[in-house]
Amino acid sequence: MTKESKNIAKIVNTPLGSLIHVGEKKVENIKITYTKYNNLELERKEINDLSKFINDTDDKVKWLDIIGIHDTNLVNKICQSLKVHPLVIEDILNTSQNPKMEDYDDYIFLVTKLMYFNEEEELETEQISFILFKDKLISFQELETELFDGILCRLKEGTNIRKNGADDLLYGLLDAIVDNYFLIVEDIGEKIDTIEDELLLNPKKEILQKIYILKRDLIYIRNSLWPMRNVISSLSKNDYDLIDGKTIYYLRDVYDHVIQMIDIIETYRDICSGMLDTYLSSIGNKTNEVMKVLTIFSTIFIPLTFLAGVYGMNFRYLPELNWKYGYFSFWIISIIIIILMLRFFRKKDWL
Amino acid sequence: MTKESKNIAKIVNTPLGSLIHVGEKKVENIKITYTKYNNLELERKEINDLSKFINDTDDKVKWLDIIGIHDTNLVNKICQSLKVHPLVIEDILNTSQNPKMEDYDDYIFLVTKLMYFNEEEELETEQISFILFKDKLISFQELETELFDGILCRLKEGTNIRKNGADDLLYGLLDAIVDNYFLIVEDIGEKIDTIEDELLLNPKKEILQKIYILKRDLIYIRNSLWPMRNVISSLSKNDYDLIDGKTIYYLRDVYDHVIQMIDIIETYRDICSGMLDTYLSSIGNKTNEVMKVLTIFSTIFIPLTFLAGVYGMNFRYLPELNWKYGYFSFWIISIIIIILMLRFFRKKDWL
Amino acid sequence: MTKESKNIAKIVNTPLGSLIHVGEKKVENIKITYTKYNNLELERKEINDLSKFINDTDDKVKWLDIIGIHDTNLVNKICQSLKVHPLVIEDILNTSQNPKMEDYDDYIFLVTKLMYFNEEEELETEQISFILFKDKLISFQELETELFDGILCRLKEGTNIRKNGADDLLYGLLDAIVDNYFLIVEDIGEKIDTIEDELLLNPKKEILQKIYILKRDLIYIRNSLWPMRNVISSLSKNDYDLIDGKTIYYLRDVYDHVIQMIDIIETYRDICSGMLDTYLSSIGNKTNEVMKVLTIFSTIFIPLTFLAGVYGMNFRYLPELNWKYGYFSFWIISIIIIILMLRFFRKKDWL
Amino acid sequence: MTKESKNIAKIVNTPLGSLIHVGEKKVENIKITYTKYNNLELERKEINDLSKFINDTDDKVKWLDIIGIHDTNLVNKICQSLKVHPLVIEDILNTSQNPKMEDYDDYIFLVTKLMYFNEEEELETEQISFILFKDKLISFQELETELFDGILCRLKEGTNIRKNGADDLLYGLLDAIVDNYFLIVEDIGEKIDTIEDELLLNPKKEILQKIYILKRDLIYIRNSLWPMRNVISSLSKNDYDLIDGKTIYYLRDVYDHVIQMIDIIETYRDICSGMLDTYLSSIGNKTNEVMKVLTIFSTIFIPLTFLAGVYGMNFRYLPELNWKYGYFSFWIISIIIIILMLRFFRKKDWL
Amino acid sequence: MTKESKNIAKIVNTPLGSLIHVGEKKVENIKITYTKYNNLELERKEINDLSKFINDTDDKVKWLDIIGIHDTNLVNKICQSLKVHPLVIEDILNTSQNPKMEDYDDYIFLVTKLMYFNEEEELETEQISFILFKDKLISFQELETELFDGILCRLKEGTNIRKNGADDLLYGLLDAIVDNYFLIVEDIGEKIDTIEDELLLNPKKEILQKIYILKRDLIYIRNSLWPMRNVISSLSKNDYDLIDGKTIYYLRDVYDHVIQMIDIIETYRDICSGMLDTYLSSIGNKTNEVMKVLTIFSTIFIPLTFLAGVYGMNFRYLPELNWKYGYFSFWIISIIIIILMLRFFRKKDWL
Repeated sequence: MTKESKNIAKIVNTPLGSLIHVGEKKVENIKITYTKYNNLELERKEINDLSKFINDTDDKVKWLDIIGIHDTNLVNKICQSLKVHPLVIEDILNTSQNPKMEDYDDYIFLVTKLMYFNEEEELETEQISFILFKDKLISFQELETELFDGILCRLKEGTNIRKNGADDLLYGLLDAIVDNYFLIVEDIGEKIDTIEDELLLNPKKEILQKIYILKRDLIYIRNSLWPMRNVISSLSKNDYDLIDGKTIYYLRDVYDHVIQMIDIIETYRDICSGMLDTYLSSIGNKTNEVMKVLTIFSTIFIPLTFLAGVYGMNFRYLPELNWKYGYFSFWIISIIIIILMLRFFRKKDWL
Repeated sequence: MTKESKNIAKIVNTPLGSLIHVGEKKVENIKITYTKYNNLELERKEINDLSKFINDTDDKVKWLDIIGIHDTNLVNKICQSLKVHPLVIEDILNTSQNPKMEDYDDYIFLVTKLMYFNEEEELETEQISFILFKDKLISFQELETELFDGILCRLKEGTNIRKNGADDLLYGLLDAIVDNYFLIVEDIGEKIDTIEDELLLNPKKEILQKIYILKRDLIYIRNSLWPMRNVISSLSKNDYDLIDGKTIYYLRDVYDHVIQMIDIIETYRDICSGMLDTYLSSIGNKTNEVMKVLTIFSTIFIPLTFLAGVYGMNFRYLPELNWKYGYFSFWIISIIIIILMLRFFRKKDWL
Repeated sequence: MTKESKNIAKIVNTPLGSLIHVGEKKVENIKITYTKYNNLELERKEINDLSKFINDTDDKVKWLDIIGIHDTNLVNKICQSLKVHPLVIEDILNTSQNPKMEDYDDYIFLVTKLMYFNEEEELETEQISFILFKDKLISFQELETELFDGILCRLKEGTNIRKNGADDLLYGLLDAIVDNYFLIVEDIGEKIDTIEDELLLNPKKEILQKIYILKRDLIYIRNSLWPMRNVISSLSKNDYDLIDGKTIYYLRDVYDHVIQMIDIIETYRDICSGMLDTYLSSIGNKTNEVMKVLTIFSTIFIPLTFLAGVYGMNFRYLPELNWKYGYFSFWIISIIIIILMLRFFRKKDWL
Repeated sequence: MTKESKNIAKIVNTPLGSLIHVGEKKVENIKITYTKYNNLELERKEINDLSKFINDTDDKVKWLDIIGIHDTNLVNKICQSLKVHPLVIEDILNTSQNPKMEDYDDYIFLVTKLMYFNEEEELETEQISFILFKDKLISFQELETELFDGILCRLKEGTNIRKNGADDLLYGLLDAIVDNYFLIVEDIGEKIDTIEDELLLNPKKEILQKIYILKRDLIYIRNSLWPMRNVISSLSKNDYDLIDGKTIYYLRDVYDHVIQMIDIIETYRDICSGMLDTYLSSIGNKTNEVMKVLTIFSTIFIPLTFLAGVYGMNFRYLPELNWKYGYFSFWIISIIIIILMLRFFRKKDWL
Repeated sequence: MTKESKNIAKIVNTPLGSLIHVGEKKVENIKITYTKYNNLELERKEINDLSKFINDTDDKVKWLDIIGIHDTNLVNKICQSLKVHPLVIEDILNTSQNPKMEDYDDYIFLVTKLMYFNEEEELETEQISFILFKDKLISFQELETELFDGILCRLKEGTNIRKNGADDLLYGLLDAIVDNYFLIVEDIGEKIDTIEDELLLNPKKEILQKIYILKRDLIYIRNSLWPMRNVISSLSKNDYDLIDGKTIYYLRDVYDHVIQMIDIIETYRDICSGMLDTYLSSIGNKTNEVMKVLTIFSTIFIPLTFLAGVYGMNFRYLPELNWKYGYFSFWIISIIIIILMLRFFRKKDWL
């Protein structure tokens, strides 16, 4: 949950300027995929020797996708060979970053977050960083996902995307990341539907935990989306040489999606708060109902028991005991008491 | 409820740039109505062949009203023949859009939302998109409603509206859409009145659900109205060649209506929160009252029952049992205890 | 309460541009008072023939006060003769408007609201609209009040006000309207004082309703004052030819009053929320106290009653029954139990 | 508490432009002190004849301190002789003003508030108004306090303050007023500490009232400080001829103090809300605990009492009664029941 | 907790302009460390005679670290010899300051706060002030910590830091201070994890206190970080001669860290509120459960006990007592009652 804080210790206790990987090591081996394309052809392979990428100077779009970032030397080597600022390298390695965008004239640096539910239905976060050069794009992922499969597909099919530059590729990848949030939002929407039905029909104790976890997850998603919004907003609003006017149009569409999701999330949070209030009230109602049952039973039988107690006393002089219709009268009185009590409860609207 | 999220899956799992209809198919057959008018005459008919509309170049105002948007080919065909941007087509087909306005120099694209209560008193949303050209207006609706009957009426009667351009027609349609929100707001206002009376006179358990649903509906309406506000605000504030100065005056009136509704809705939300708090307190009060009844009965009869128990014991040496006025004294003591208890409760303000 | 919404139906179901009166008919006959003055003389009379007013072109200040607006023809006639925009006429007749100000070069149009408590202590709203021309002022009221008596008094006494133009008259009327809000605010302040005392000394059930109604009224007043604030702010900040620099100074004073009232109302709302929370807690406290009484009584007598029950059993071999001091011992044990229980409760701080 | 509102009636019912004193008459006699100084000498005396002050035209700094403002004629006379705007005079006399600053070219008018706890620990407010001229300062107080003793002391000691103009004197007085708020804030801080300890150790019923009063007082202080902030902010930010650049530096320090206090107050409000929530939960906990005691006792003894009742029945054929070890077995069974119940409660974590 | 307020009394009761130390005396002796370095060499020693520092005019970076600020004369002497404004000296000595930054052309003055948990897990605050001159830096600390050990280490190792000016040293120290906040945030994150687990598995009474203290601590940290944010923001955004462009880059990184922490803290506060709501609901649930146990037991045994009481009565004519199977029938009836009750409870979903 609070993985952010868990990573902090590492940073604080290290001398400034030294590079460390902050976060869990999520894959065993680092995997580097090098994709190179232009309008005419597409080349894609796993590489180990980075010099190939660094020294490649033709005008094709070059995409280096690095999966696994715990090998700080490797990341450092790539970045230094491309003259990337040390702070950028630090940020790539530190997976407790917030999404952000920084413009370093020659290149644009982006940190984004991927969120997904793992098998235990817990929210997991992966950091994906991008460095966009003139016609180079480097992406750093923590682990291998199917997130970019759609883009690869389209690259292979040779659709329009191959005619455009690295900025359009970046757009495609960002779009995939943002669309991924929709999946979580959708997931949460379904959970809300389930809980809502349960809440209005038959609120049980477990509902409380579910609402709590939902609310907490929504807080985390919102906190991840807000800086995301800023990132894409500044990408699409400012004038960067590296980003084409046409791409900006598409980025605004991504921006709209983010805004829309933030709206939905705020709505969901409001609804969750409403559900909690409603649940709280429904507990009160239940206690009330339990109380009523207890009170009705007790107040009916307590006087009767007292009466039975009275005629169970052993006083020598207790005239009623010797009456012929004493026992019969006892029952008559009892029934009268019961009827009066029931009327009283009906008047009170408890029955 | 969370239909937004339900539609998301469709978008996410589709390759970018391919056109899909997101949402339910609400009508069986697509119905296209073509209306054409100027100051002098009005022509209105259902058409199948779109070429008629596309190639029409006289200076009459031309309005193409398309009901049912699940036929993606058709929508695509119309849009492409008018050189509409692919993103616009996507947005028309995707009914999970937020209201928005986009200016593409040649045309203005609007997404609006129509909200209404269905027969089960559930809030339903329909998306209505508009593309406004120089003297052409295309509207895309999901299903057939009586919403635009008022406008048609006025068109037929040949009031001032026929003297103006397509922008004035757009104003009329937007006005109809916004006025429709008033109907829901009015509906909710009446519900609040009913619930309020119930709450202050005799709060029952069902009230909780009603308030909850009301609050949720208000959240959805607000979330629909906010972007609506932005849409009409930018329409009426910016300078678009396609919109006449005189129309802008009327659009500001629509804008005022939206603002007023948002105000009312916020008021209603505050009132709903107040009602929930009040309900919560009233449950507490009720539990308290039930408790008092139980406590009064119990604390009066418990000592008496004990006393009866005492004289029901079978000790050989229990002197009181043999007293002549033993039984009589028992009742005297009992009555004294009852009186003392009642006084105690009166002092405590429980009676 | 939600009269706003009740009036909506009327608007929505009417063809655009047709004039209808929205709201209750609050007076039987329309009363038109025409006041005309300059530094030297003052003329005031009820009129029926409006031509007198319309064709009056001397340089005196002319004030037409119309009470009762359900006669749409009349309102329409006056307005059209003065070339007022149709939307303005619609707004005058529609009493569900929010306060607003619109500048139409030749004249300024104002909608304001008067709030007061009726005899049932319910909040009522009256709409007062103004149209300010160069030296003409028209006011439209729904019913006759004493609101403007102060101004009339000063006009008759011939104080400075008669030296100034119609804008100063407007200021005077607005000031009277705003000051009237102070009366409600004062009234609510007193109610809060009463409730507060009750709450801290002896919170009863009825307090809940009172707080709820207070909160709701505050919401309505605030929602009426906010747009009022905007109206007076734009009157006093912008540069209108129709409003003199000197009057602006005085309008700013009115503006300060509105701001101050909004502040007080927000304070009152905070206090009301605090009162509700406190009341909720005090219910909890009360339930707790009731529970303690019940628990103390029950837990003391339950073991004793059991004991009495034991010695009321009819076992043939029950040795204690034959002991000489059996009954005496029973009481000793009972008293010990009572003392132990009381100690236990004292330790628990329940006594 | 709601003195603001109590003063309102006075204002509303008075003809506009007539001067009235709004507020309580806090001192019997008006006291006017006239202080005059420059670098070399200081003169200070009580005066009755104001002409002395008005006609004084040397270049010394002249400070007129008026204590008691119910003599409207006097206030009016002073102000008119200095050509002060009528609205200013009205504001001085009306003690229900919010703090505000108004610049009238020749002079600056300030309304400030002094807050303090009276002997009953209730929050009291005094209004102190200032009019700052070129080298004249007039202060209007409602009653005599020791607030300005520090400044007088420094004036007498001839520190730097005597070298500067009337603006520096104003700074000194404002600083004294603002520092006075620190005393209340400190007082409240101590109260919070006490309540917090009480809350976490042994929350009693009275705590509720204390928190409520604290919250309400914080609301009043905040509402007084916010406009104070604006006053000092505009004094220190704008360029007024009457205020020296050097003084502005010091005013910014006062501004920082106000900001810091607003921060502390917001913190305190958050903490108070937290305390109320915590108290509410702790009531729930207590009720729960009381319930547990009741339930444990009842559920243990209820079956036992039933059992005793069974063997107290008078059936002719009740075999157990004649068993030799019947009574002994009864106790065995009773003890087993007790043990089972205790285990059950331990499992439920109630013991 | 409210140490802020405790220090206020001191300030208020002192004549303006006199220097006093506000706060606790945290170390016995003042310790002054003088560090001087350039690219080539580093000199560091404790000094007593300040003239050494003041008269040092070579171009090395000079850092004077003063630990313990209760010796007002000393602080005053240092500051005056460097011509520091009296208000600055006051602020250094007053440890109840908020973080702030002031630019005095020749030097920049910074107040920052260090927060840490002491051994009792209470939040403590230390004030650290800085004065940055051209190539001099003075830091004032309240007590000795290991906070700056990292910087010293790097200075000794002769890394890049020695090549840069005093502004880079200031950056290093600020970075250390901000990173220190991460430690608290991390600590709180862990506490939240623990409480969350406890809350969802087995909420106990003590959890309430823990959440309350957590919330309060978060309020204090946030209130300390917000002005910190402003300080670093103005340092990094404005153009100060004393701060190098390169350093600004690094300061922005510190700024990002502060923002990120504020985000995390707001998230934590939301989560804490969620936990409190959840806890409140869970108490309601528990009470409900206790109630159910009580009600089930009572309502089963109350009728049975009544029945036993009936047959314990001593009426002479009580026919059932003489029936052969009377006792047997009693048990049959009892068991039937039990079964019916259990069914009733199962239907009510209480079992």
